[in-house]
Amino acid sequence: MAAKNPVIITDKDEMRKWSRKMRSQGKTIGLVPTMGYLHQGHLSLIREAHNHSQLIVVSIYVNPGQFSPSEDLSTYPSDFHGDILKLKSVPGGVDAVFCPKNLYDYNYNERQNTKNEKENCAAGHGAGVVSCVEEECSGHETWVRVERLEKGLCGKSRPVFFRGVATIVTKLFNIVEPDVAVFGKKDYQQWRIIQRMVRDLDFAIEIVGSEIMRDSDGLALSSRNVHLSPEEREKALSISRSLLEAKSAAEEGEVKCRELKDLAVTKITQAGGRIDYAEIVEQESLEAVEEIKSPVVFCIAAWFGKVRLIDNIEINI
Amino acid sequence: MAAKNPVIITDKDEMRKWSRKMRSQGKTIGLVPTMGYLHQGHLSLIREAHNHSQLIVVSIYVNPGQFSPSEDLSTYPSDFHGDILKLKSVPGGVDAVFCPKNLYDYNYNERQNTKNEKENCAAGHGAGVVSCVEEECSGHETWVRVERLEKGLCGKSRPVFFRGVATIVTKLFNIVEPDVAVFGKKDYQQWRIIQRMVRDLDFAIEIVGSEIMRDSDGLALSSRNVHLSPEEREKALSISRSLLEAKSAAEEGEVKCRELKDLAVTKITQAGGRIDYAEIVEQESLEAVEEIKSPVVFCIAAWFGKVRLIDNIEINI
Repeated sequence: MAAKNPVIITDKDEMRKWSRKMRSQGKTIGLVPTMGYLHQGHLSLIREAHNHSQLIVVSIYVNPGQFSPSEDLSTYPSDFHGDILKLKSVPGGVDAVFCPKNLYDYNYNERQNTKNEKENCAAGHGAGVVSCVEEECSGHETWVRVERLEKGLCGKSRPVFFRGVATIVTKLFNIVEPDVAVFGKKDYQQWRIIQRMVRDLDFAIEIVGSEIMRDSDGLALSSRNVHLSPEEREKALSISRSLLEAKSAAEEGEVKCRELKDLAVTKITQAGGRIDYAEIVEQESLEAVEEIKSPVVFCIAAWFGKVRLIDNIEINI
Repeated sequence: MAAKNPVIITDKDEMRKWSRKMRSQGKTIGLVPTMGYLHQGHLSLIREAHNHSQLIVVSIYVNPGQFSPSEDLSTYPSDFHGDILKLKSVPGGVDAVFCPKNLYDYNYNERQNTKNEKENCAAGHGAGVVSCVEEECSGHETWVRVERLEKGLCGKSRPVFFRGVATIVTKLFNIVEPDVAVFGKKDYQQWRIIQRMVRDLDFAIEIVGSEIMRDSDGLALSSRNVHLSPEEREKALSISRSLLEAKSAAEEGEVKCRELKDLAVTKITQAGGRIDYAEIVEQESLEAVEEIKSPVVFCIAAWFGKVRLIDNIEINI
C-alpha cells in the first residue's frame, strides 16, 4: 500500500478549519490523542480508529497540564520525525497530524495584568493541586474534573494528572471536533474518565477503548519503557505475569481479592519493583471490590528504578 | 411584524440534530441561555443575539447544578406558557426553544450500582461543595471550574454557583453547538467566567456581553424581583442609586475605592438592605483594586427581605 502523507497542522484554528471542511464534505473524523514517541500501541489505536471513522487525526502534544512540577515532563521522550514516519506506515494511513506548540498560550504575560493576578497565577487550585501549567503562569485557570473517578488508583499518587487529562481532551475535542476518539485501555482509568466526562458534559463524540498492546514477552507497550535498563525491563515483566496469574486464579475460582492482590504484590516486590497500587475494581465505577462477583479490572502501578509503569487486566466473570 | 412560532425542543439529541441541520444549510446560530420566567432583560439578550447570528435558540432550564440544597431552587419562579408568548413577541423572533426536562438524568439509578457508588453520590466534591445535583444522586460527577474567577464576589457566598454555571453552559454548548452565545452583564462575574472558560477550553463560540436592562425607576431587571414586596422594592432602589452615585463621584475625581464603597454600603444599609458584598474590581481579572486608575466594575450583592439582588456598574476611567 502506498504511504499516505498526513497534513501537518500546528495552529488550532487551522485544525478546526480542516475538520469543518471535511465534515462539510460528509466525512466522519476519528481522533487519536497522543503525547508522541509513538509505538505499536499507538498504531493499534489508529487501526481501531479506522473501524469507526473515514478520516483520522492524530494529535501529538505533551500536555504540561497533566504533569506536576516534580514529574517527568522535561524528560518525556520525543521523536517527531520518527513519529511521522511511523504514521505514514500505518495501514490506512493518517489524514492529519495536529502538533500544536503550546495549547495554554493566551498571550497572558504580554498583557497588562495587575500585580495580584501575576502573583496568583501559581497559587492554583484551592485543593493545592498545581501542574506545570500553573508554573508556566499562562493565565489558564479552567479545569475539567471527573470528581469521583479521578480520586483512586493513579489519582492518589498523581493528583493533577486526570484533571490535566480531562482538560486537554476537552480542548482537543473543541479544536478537532471529531465524531469518534480512541483511547487505549492500558490507561484504563483515563479511558473510563473520558467516557464519563463525555456523558456528563454531553459531547457528541463516541469514545472507543482499544485493547492493550504487549511486546512478545508480555510487557505492555509504553513510551516510558525506553527508560528501562535491560535488567529493569526483565524485572518489570513481573507485572504482566502476575496479572495473568491473577486472572487464571480467578477463573479457577479464587474470588477473594485480598488473596489475588497479595500474590501479585509479592511477585512484583520480589522482582525488585516498588508497588504504587494494586487494586481490583469494578470496571465502570472503579470502586474497589472485596470479592469478584461481576466483571472487574485488576490495575497495577509499580516503579522499576526511576520508571513508573502501569498495567491492567479485565477479569470478566 | 408577524409573530414567529419557535420550534419547541425538549430532547437533547433532537436539539443537536436541529442545529446541525441549520448549520449544514449555512446558517449561524446564536444561543441565549436562560432559566425562564422571562422579562425584558432576557428579551434584550435576544435582540442582541440578532445582531450576531441568523438563527436564535433560547434555552429555558432551571439548572439544579448551580443551586446549593439550601438555596431557592424549589421556589425559583417559572411560567413556561408566558415565556413562549413573550418569545413570540420579540422583534425578529426566536427560532427554537430548548427546554429539557433534566440534563443530569443518565438512568443512573436504574442501573445496578455498587452500594458504595450510591452511598458516595452525595459525598460530592473534595472541597465539600455540594449542589442539588449531588443531592439528586444522578451519577453526574464532571464539573468545569474557572478556578480564580469563581472565587470572589458571588462565589464567596455561593460556593457551588459558578461551578454549576460553567458546567451547564458547557453542556448547552455541546448540545446546541452555537456560533455565538449572549450573556447579560447584570451577571457580570458569570459573563467573565464564561468568556474565560471559552478561551481556556477552546470552544469555537463568540461570547457577547449585553448591557443591563433596568426598570424606569432604575432597578436592574431580575426574575427574582417578583419576590419583592412593594416596600422592599422601593428600598432595593438604593442599590442602583448608590452605584450611579459612585460612578459620578469617580468621574468627578474620587478614586479611593474605600470611600466609594463606604458610601454605597451606608446608603443600602440605611435603606434596610443587608450587604453580601460591595467590591470595586478590575473588569477582566475581577481582582479588587484600592484606587481607580483603569476601567473597573463596582459590583454589589444585597439582601432585601428574603431576596438576594445583584447589580453592578462599569466605571471606565
